[in-house]
Amino acid sequence: MKVGKKHYRAVWMKGKNVYLIKQNLLPFDFKILKSKNYLQTCKAIKDMITRGAGSIGATAGFAMAQAFLEAPKKSFWKYIEKAKKDIESTRPTARDLFNATEKVFFVGKNSKTPVQAAVKEAQAIADFYIQAGKKIGEYGNSLIKNNSNIETHCNTGWIALVDYGTALAAIYIAHRKKKKIFVYVDETRPRNQGAKLTAWELKNEGVPHVIIPDNAGAFLMSQGKIDLMIVGADRIARNGDTANKIGTFEKAIAAKEFNIPFYVAAPISTFDINCPSGKNIPIEERSEDEVLFQTGLTDDNKIKKIRVCSRGSKAYNPAFDVTPAKYITAIITEKGIIKPTQKEIKKLLS
Amino acid sequence: MKVGKKHYRAVWMKGKNVYLIKQNLLPFDFKILKSKNYLQTCKAIKDMITRGAGSIGATAGFAMAQAFLEAPKKSFWKYIEKAKKDIESTRPTARDLFNATEKVFFVGKNSKTPVQAAVKEAQAIADFYIQAGKKIGEYGNSLIKNNSNIETHCNTGWIALVDYGTALAAIYIAHRKKKKIFVYVDETRPRNQGAKLTAWELKNEGVPHVIIPDNAGAFLMSQGKIDLMIVGADRIARNGDTANKIGTFEKAIAAKEFNIPFYVAAPISTFDINCPSGKNIPIEERSEDEVLFQTGLTDDNKIKKIRVCSRGSKAYNPAFDVTPAKYITAIITEKGIIKPTQKEIKKLLS
Repeated sequence: MKVGKKHYRAVWMKGKNVYLIKQNLLPFDFKILKSKNYLQTCKAIKDMITRGAGSIGATAGFAMAQAFLEAPKKSFWKYIEKAKKDIESTRPTARDLFNATEKVFFVGKNSKTPVQAAVKEAQAIADFYIQAGKKIGEYGNSLIKNNSNIETHCNTGWIALVDYGTALAAIYIAHRKKKKIFVYVDETRPRNQGAKLTAWELKNEGVPHVIIPDNAGAFLMSQGKIDLMIVGADRIARNGDTANKIGTFEKAIAAKEFNIPFYVAAPISTFDINCPSGKNIPIEERSEDEVLFQTGLTDDNKIKKIRVCSRGSKAYNPAFDVTPAKYITAIITEKGIIKPTQKEIKKLLS
Repeated sequence: MKVGKKHYRAVWMKGKNVYLIKQNLLPFDFKILKSKNYLQTCKAIKDMITRGAGSIGATAGFAMAQAFLEAPKKSFWKYIEKAKKDIESTRPTARDLFNATEKVFFVGKNSKTPVQAAVKEAQAIADFYIQAGKKIGEYGNSLIKNNSNIETHCNTGWIALVDYGTALAAIYIAHRKKKKIFVYVDETRPRNQGAKLTAWELKNEGVPHVIIPDNAGAFLMSQGKIDLMIVGADRIARNGDTANKIGTFEKAIAAKEFNIPFYVAAPISTFDINCPSGKNIPIEERSEDEVLFQTGLTDDNKIKKIRVCSRGSKAYNPAFDVTPAKYITAIITEKGIIKPTQKEIKKLLS
């Protein structure tokens, strides 16, 4: 998608170098990191310079490709195996990261020209995310009528999935097809991914939008100002229950109250067929500092952290919630749109 | 209520001086303004050093009393009348302010000892708010069982009502009666009155609590962690529809979904019998800067304002929403607890 007038991906590889948008500086600064070797790319993953399942997966694939390119002939596989471990230890809970390292390793191992094969596979992984995002966007677009007001939560955009994104992909495609749409962006406390990242993406892509406090959702719905809501997903259970950023569930309840369609957009890889229902999804609790402090830009353009609450008070910070399937109108994937039922999910994954 | 170990009111008068907690500095600094004359007290109201319907009303009454004390014998009533206009122009939309100036003026005008009568009336106005808060607290406490987890929104505490408060009064009384309670404080974006003021009040009063992002409400309810919710009100229509801080409606919808009692606590003066329903309540839209920027404390103890969202993005900031009566379990007033129906409201006000 566009930054300024130029097209970017969240991460890409050219020659031996991996280039990454420094997402940790967004939206206040736009900089590209040029990583010259796999160790530097590992550090970029670890330091959360890149984020989002797809972008992490693609970056891990590229890091593996770099290792293949760098590995000395003498101890070639030893070097690759160490690199694989190094990459996998950067974000040990990111499933897409392991998928990517495994794939590139496997393809390289089984090729007569392992270096070329590894590089090609890493590019294919990045392309896979892009194509999945584009497909999700096209299916999602089919649900968006002209003159729609859309509410969205958190960041589900191209910076998290190399390009396009999930829920935002639908918005991008609708916008490119010249549909008249307007996006209400939940600021998404406590980390403000909506106010910081989604709003930044939409502004660069020229999609009309406004940031709203998370508190304003039900009010806007009650006023008839929201035609549909699209969100992403972190994990979808076999029965359609969906774990996503904290606050998603509250919006889904409000949307149901006002008969507003509530869509989840996610790639197939988000489904966890081994997880029977939302009850089996553990909810990560994050540092209270995310609630107690806020990071932003001072008027002299410095990034500063301030305390935004009473000194000495504690905060409780669950990072996700689970929206039961009954609140979800449909799930948009790269293979089509399904109802959030065990039957349709099994069919989709088979 | 307590600050440190000492009891305070939000505003009080002693001799010719009015003392006000500088609420604009809370929670980062606790300072008292000593206002020596009515003009200085006017400035304190205008500069929002004091806030909240009751605290503004009491301050306006004290300002009138100061005018009576200061007025020169020669042009006594001319001075008082000018003072009344000055005070009323500080916050022309605050109904309690006009009630107070009218009352003190009227009582002074009809007394043989106008100065003493005015001072006495001003004290009575402050005492009225305190007594109303205490009564609301006692009635509210009757709805709180031992071992309750209570969610609350915005600030409805003693600093807004001279002492006790409304929704928080119920919590204070329950705590003083040694009930075991725990309070989940919605941070209440965009102005963070929960995270800043309610948490500060609860901490000083020793009530166990934690700040939560507004997004976490429905999740906590779904986990069985909330036994009841109590909020305040800005205006209650004849049919029980209630305007309150933005986000209240969303919580009420979630509470109904999980069969959690949802109480509104407010003094009788909040009812607007001339307003037939919530549809007739206009919603104030406030500056987008409240969403785009946040004020807080730097690590070197300076109060600083930072931008917490993407540069160039706009925000939409409705300040209130209206919760229809059907979502409200009961309304707690200083005259008792009623169902939010036209019949019970009319009976209460008659």
